[in-house]
Amino acid sequence: MVKIPVVREILEVNDRIAEENRAIFRENGVFVLNLMSSPGAGKTSLLERTIDALHEEIQIGVIEGDIQTSIDAIRISKKGIPAVQINTDDACHLDGNMIRAAFDSLDLKALDLLIIENVGNLVCPAEFDTGENHKVVILSIPEGDDKPAKYPLMFHEASVLLVNKMDLLPYIDCSLDVIKETSMKINPHLEIFEVSCKTQEGLSNWYDWLRQKVHAFKEGESDR
Amino acid sequence: MVKIPVVREILEVNDRIAEENRAIFRENGVFVLNLMSSPGAGKTSLLERTIDALHEEIQIGVIEGDIQTSIDAIRISKKGIPAVQINTDDACHLDGNMIRAAFDSLDLKALDLLIIENVGNLVCPAEFDTGENHKVVILSIPEGDDKPAKYPLMFHEASVLLVNKMDLLPYIDCSLDVIKETSMKINPHLEIFEVSCKTQEGLSNWYDWLRQKVHAFKEGESDR
Repeated sequence: MVKIPVVREILEVNDRIAEENRAIFRENGVFVLNLMSSPGAGKTSLLERTIDALHEEIQIGVIEGDIQTSIDAIRISKKGIPAVQINTDDACHLDGNMIRAAFDSLDLKALDLLIIENVGNLVCPAEFDTGENHKVVILSIPEGDDKPAKYPLMFHEASVLLVNKMDLLPYIDCSLDVIKETSMKINPHLEIFEVSCKTQEGLSNWYDWLRQKVHAFKEGESDR
Repeated sequence: MVKIPVVREILEVNDRIAEENRAIFRENGVFVLNLMSSPGAGKTSLLERTIDALHEEIQIGVIEGDIQTSIDAIRISKKGIPAVQINTDDACHLDGNMIRAAFDSLDLKALDLLIIENVGNLVCPAEFDTGENHKVVILSIPEGDDKPAKYPLMFHEASVLLVNKMDLLPYIDCSLDVIKETSMKINPHLEIFEVSCKTQEGLSNWYDWLRQKVHAFKEGESDR
C-alpha cells in the first residue's frame, strides 16, 4: 500500500460573516444550533420529534438546507412553525451568507431557538461557521463505527453527538463502544446521547439538554 | 415556508486533466470505475466482495480516497491486490490531479480493472470527473427513499446504482419502488442492482455486469 497525502487550502472568509450573524442572534435572544450528518441519518426526523416535544414551551424556527427540493421544509411546515428553505443548487454545505439571507425571512424576535438543518454531508459543513451557538452531529448506527475516525473534524467541532437508529443495533455489525471511545478521543467535551427517532428511545435526554441550554442562554449565560 | 435559492459557480478546470487520465487508462488497457456513496453505505464492503469473486479472472487495482486514516486501504491490501491510499485532508472529493498522483504508484499495464473508492459524500464527488469509464453509486436502504430526489446529480451521473443493505429492508420504512422510480426519472439509462454485501444477495448480477464491461473494453469497444 502506498500513501499519498493531498493538502488543500480552505478559504475561511466565512468567519467574519458568521460572527456578525452570531451578534444578531444574540441581540434577538435566539439560541442557534447547526444540525449536521450524512444523508439519511435522521436530521429531519429529529427535528419533527423535537418540535412535537418542545413547541409548547419553546418558540422554535427552522432553516432547511438542501441542494434541491423542499421535501424537508414541507415536512417541518406541517408542524406549524416558521421554516425557511435554502436550496444551495450545487453547494455541499451552508455558509454564513446563506444563513443571513434566510434569517431575514424570519421574525427572530419571536423565536427562542433556531435550528439550522445543514446539507446531508459529513465533510464540508463542519468547516463553515454559520453563527450558531453549538454544532450538533447525528451518526446513525447503519453508517458504522469507523465514521468518527474517518471524519474527525465533524466530531471535533460538535458539542453534541446523537447516535440515532439505536433500534437497528441488533441487526448490524456496529460497536457503540467504538463510536463512543473514538469520538471522545477526538473531542473529550462531546455530549453523547443514544436515541431512536423511530421508537423515541433516549430522546428525553436530548430534550433536557436543549431545554437547559435555551433557558441558560435566555438568562444571559454566554454560550458559544 | 419561504424558499431562497443560492446559486454557486463550480470550477470545471478539472475536466482537461480527467481526459488526460482517461487516455492513459485506455493506452494501458485499464477499465476504470469511480465508486461513490454517502459515508457507510458499503463501498469498501462491495470492493471486498468483488475482489473475492473476480480476482482470479480479472486483475484488479484500487485507489482509496479518504479524508484521513488508511482504514479502507488496509482492508483492501489484505486481499493481496495493489491499493493506493489518497488522504485528501480537508477535501471532500477526489479530482483528476489526485488520481494522477495516485496511479503513478500503480503498474497500470498489469491491471484490467481499476476501482476508485471516492470520499464518502453524496454531493461533491459527482461533480468531479477523475477519468473513469463509469461512475457507480451505492445507496443503502437505511438512508431512505428520498435520497435520489434530494441528491439528483449523483444519480444523473452514475451508470449503475447498487441499492445495498437489502437485508435491512424489513426493519426500515423505505420504499424500494420510490428509489427505483425516482432514480429512473432522473436517469433512464441507470442500471439498478439490489444487493446485500452482508448476505451476498444479488451480487452475482453486479459481477456479471462488471465481467461483461471489462471484457468488452479489452476487446476495444469504446466505453465512456
